[in-house]
Formats: sequence, structure tokens, C-alpha cells
Amino acid sequence: MVYTSINNERIKSIKKLQNKKYRDLENKFFIESEHLVEEAYKSGCLETLIIDEKSNFKLDVDTIKVSEGVKRYLTELESPKEVMGVCNKKFGKITGNKILVLDGIQDPGNLGTIIRSSKAFNVDTIILSNDTVDLYNSKVIRASQGTLFNFNIIRGNLLELIPKLKELGYQIISTKVTDGCNIKDIATNHKISIIMGNEGNGVRKEILDLSEKYIYINMNKSVNSLNVAVATSIILYELDK
Amino acid sequence: MVYTSINNERIKSIKKLQNKKYRDLENKFFIESEHLVEEAYKSGCLETLIIDEKSNFKLDVDTIKVSEGVKRYLTELESPKEVMGVCNKKFGKITGNKILVLDGIQDPGNLGTIIRSSKAFNVDTIILSNDTVDLYNSKVIRASQGTLFNFNIIRGNLLELIPKLKELGYQIISTKVTDGCNIKDIATNHKISIIMGNEGNGVRKEILDLSEKYIYINMNKSVNSLNVAVATSIILYELDK
Repeated sequence: MVYTSINNERIKSIKKLQNKKYRDLENKFFIESEHLVEEAYKSGCLETLIIDEKSNFKLDVDTIKVSEGVKRYLTELESPKEVMGVCNKKFGKITGNKILVLDGIQDPGNLGTIIRSSKAFNVDTIILSNDTVDLYNSKVIRASQGTLFNFNIIRGNLLELIPKLKELGYQIISTKVTDGCNIKDIATNHKISIIMGNEGNGVRKEILDLSEKYIYINMNKSVNSLNVAVATSIILYELDK
Repeated sequence: MVYTSINNERIKSIKKLQNKKYRDLENKFFIESEHLVEEAYKSGCLETLIIDEKSNFKLDVDTIKVSEGVKRYLTELESPKEVMGVCNKKFGKITGNKILVLDGIQDPGNLGTIIRSSKAFNVDTIILSNDTVDLYNSKVIRASQGTLFNFNIIRGNLLELIPKLKELGYQIISTKVTDGCNIKDIATNHKISIIMGNEGNGVRKEILDLSEKYIYINMNKSVNSLNVAVATSIILYELDK
């Protein structure tokens, strides 16, 4: 059977996943492209595979075929892909020695890029503040290149979670442009949480006040700051060496 | 005098600068926001300041006032700024000890971010391949945070420019995921050119063949690659230490 109508209830419920409210309600999200679908499948979160009626793409999971018109209706891309999917959200927990805390990241490209770098440099857990951009925004998923599917990611109130991290023995380290110690000189032999702030404003004062140490990246004084995904990646790279 | 008509020839010629063809013809480009205009002014490339008729913003440069309607016509932003400007392009030359060569970067956000990091980590010259995204694309300018205004940037045919770099005594180093030496172990005591490739495909084979050394960034094997702006920034950071 091929779904050919955009008025079909199942198709409409997939389309609704482009809306954050509905993603939160259903605990599901929508992805596009063979690469992302394969990564989702490998991580066990792919619930439904959606393929163009002409496609021969196969995976051992519930599969539906759609017409060209339905594909164009579902896509968020200028050039729709032959392969799409619906995934189940996963819920993480605090684990491992290296935790990244993001305080109010707004740009989906930045969040996705940070997740990709976090995987590359062996972060164990990512904690997102409640006001950070939605993890399941399609731009975040694309920029992460699918690395978010099997990543341990939590969203919550940082003013509650940071004290909890302290209790669990993590050292709390914030980035601060004005003072602190050079990232090069950070010892990495215990449990640490690195806090990165919002694109425009950095880490909020209440969060800085909860921190035990401040770090900066040494750079040319004529430049105020780096892009937040770049700064995060450099810190994670340095901590992973 | 306040410009109130979008049919005015001067206003129309400013609007045309949103088009690459016209930017190339006029050797000028358009910018928006107080921060970018101030940076352009400091670097000496601001030709015309354009302000909302209600704005008191002042700089010692040819200034025109525009109505709300004209401002909305000129802007490329969802929320137009009170302050805009027209700048003259600058043309760079090969200089300094540290050169960054970009082979086919497509995403304007990536190019802007790379320029910002290049300034932070003391790159002397950036060389763009002819197929790299336009430097004066508004998204590049915004992502660069204005650092491009007084940067030494050249665009040209890399197959001609790289042999020239060799003659001038620069060591030619390309990034390659598969082999090469760890970026940590690169000696930085002479003139170097670092070549970074396109988002999807990396450095072109013809360019790799011209290179004398290959480098990689050590990372978790489950991740194929980093975002190109992140990879470039980590390499520049490491070379600047």
C-alpha cells in the first residue's frame, strides 16, 4: 500500500512532528535522508521508515511507502529525500566522567555542531537548560549528522541540576572571557562538568556563581569571542588529548 | 533630506548590492547593524552610513537618512536595524607566516565562523578558491562578526596559487581524515599554508597532490568528521599555542 493523500490521518500525524509541541506530546521526531535514517536505525530509535514509492531502501522496521506528493508534503528540505523516518525520543541520565552543560544555546546549527564535536571528543552526558533550542529541531539533527541518536542527553533546570552534579562529585567549570585559567592548564584526571553559555550573553550570572572554576581560550585580544560551537569544540578537544 | 522612496536611484543601487553580480561589478557590499558598521568604519572600508530617520547614530562619513519604508525595503533581516552601511571591498595580498587556504567552502555561516577564528588565532592571509561562497554574502559578514573588514583575503585559482605559495617558501599542509600526522605534532616554526576542504568532500585530489604534508585531528573513531569551521578552528588554535 502506498500513502497518496495528505489528508490521511497517519500522514497528518507525521507532518505534525515538525511542530515542537507535538514532538513533546508524542515523544517522537521526524528525520530525513538515508544517512540519518541509518544512524537512527543503528541506535535503535527508528520507529517507522518512510520511503518514496520508487525507492528500494530497506530496513527491518515498520515501513510505509508514500507518493511523490506526500513526500513533498512531509519534507522540510528544498530537495526532498527518498528516505525519511519517525524516531522515538530517548531520555538520558547523568553518567560518565565528562559532562557538557549548555546554558541557553539558541542557534540549532550551533547545538547540532556541539553534539557532533561532543561525540568526537568523548563527552559522556550533555545537559541542556530548559531554554536551549529543541534538540529535535530538524536543523539540530542535520548539523549533528545523526550523532544525537545514541547520545546521553538530558534537559532540565540548571539551578537544580548543577548542585546535583556537585553532590555526585563533578567539578563545575564555566567559561568566562574575562578571567580564569587557560584551558591548556586544566587537569583532566577527575569528574568534570563544563558549562558553555548563550551565543550573545555567555553563561548566566546565577550559573557562574555556582561554578568552582573558570576557564578561557587564549586568543588575539582584538577578537571578543569565538562562535560558541567553535569554543566548545576547542575546549572538548583540549580536554580529550 | 530623508530618502522616502524605494524608486530612488540611489536606494535602488544599494538594494542591488544584495546580489553577488552587482557586488562584483561595483566592488561594494551592504552591511546591517551598529556593530558591523562600527567595525567597518574602524577598518576604513565604510563608504556610506545609512540611518533610520529617527536615529542619532553618527560617524564621520557620507551619511544618508531613510524612512521606515525604505529601511524595510533595504534590509535582509526579519527585524531591520536602525543602522546600515555600504562598504568598499578590500583586496588582499599574500603576506605573513600563517596562511589559511579554503577549497570550496559552501556554507556562508561556516566561512564567516572560520574568518572569526582566523582573526582570533592570528592567521595572516586567507585564500579562497573561486568556488568558495561569496565573502560579501550577508550571512558570511554576520557570522564573521565583522572580523573580515580588515582581514587580508584573496580569491583565486588554487592550482595557480599553491605553486606560488611553494615558491615563496610556505610549507603546504592539507587536512586528510585517513592518514597524515596528528595536528598536535606539527612544528610551527616556519611559513605554513593550511588547506581546508569542502563540507562534504574535503580537499580536492588535485590540491592534495600539491600538498607536502597531511594532518588530522585525533578523535573518537565512531565519528567520521567534524564540522569544517570547528576543524579549522581547532587546527588554528593548536598552531597558535
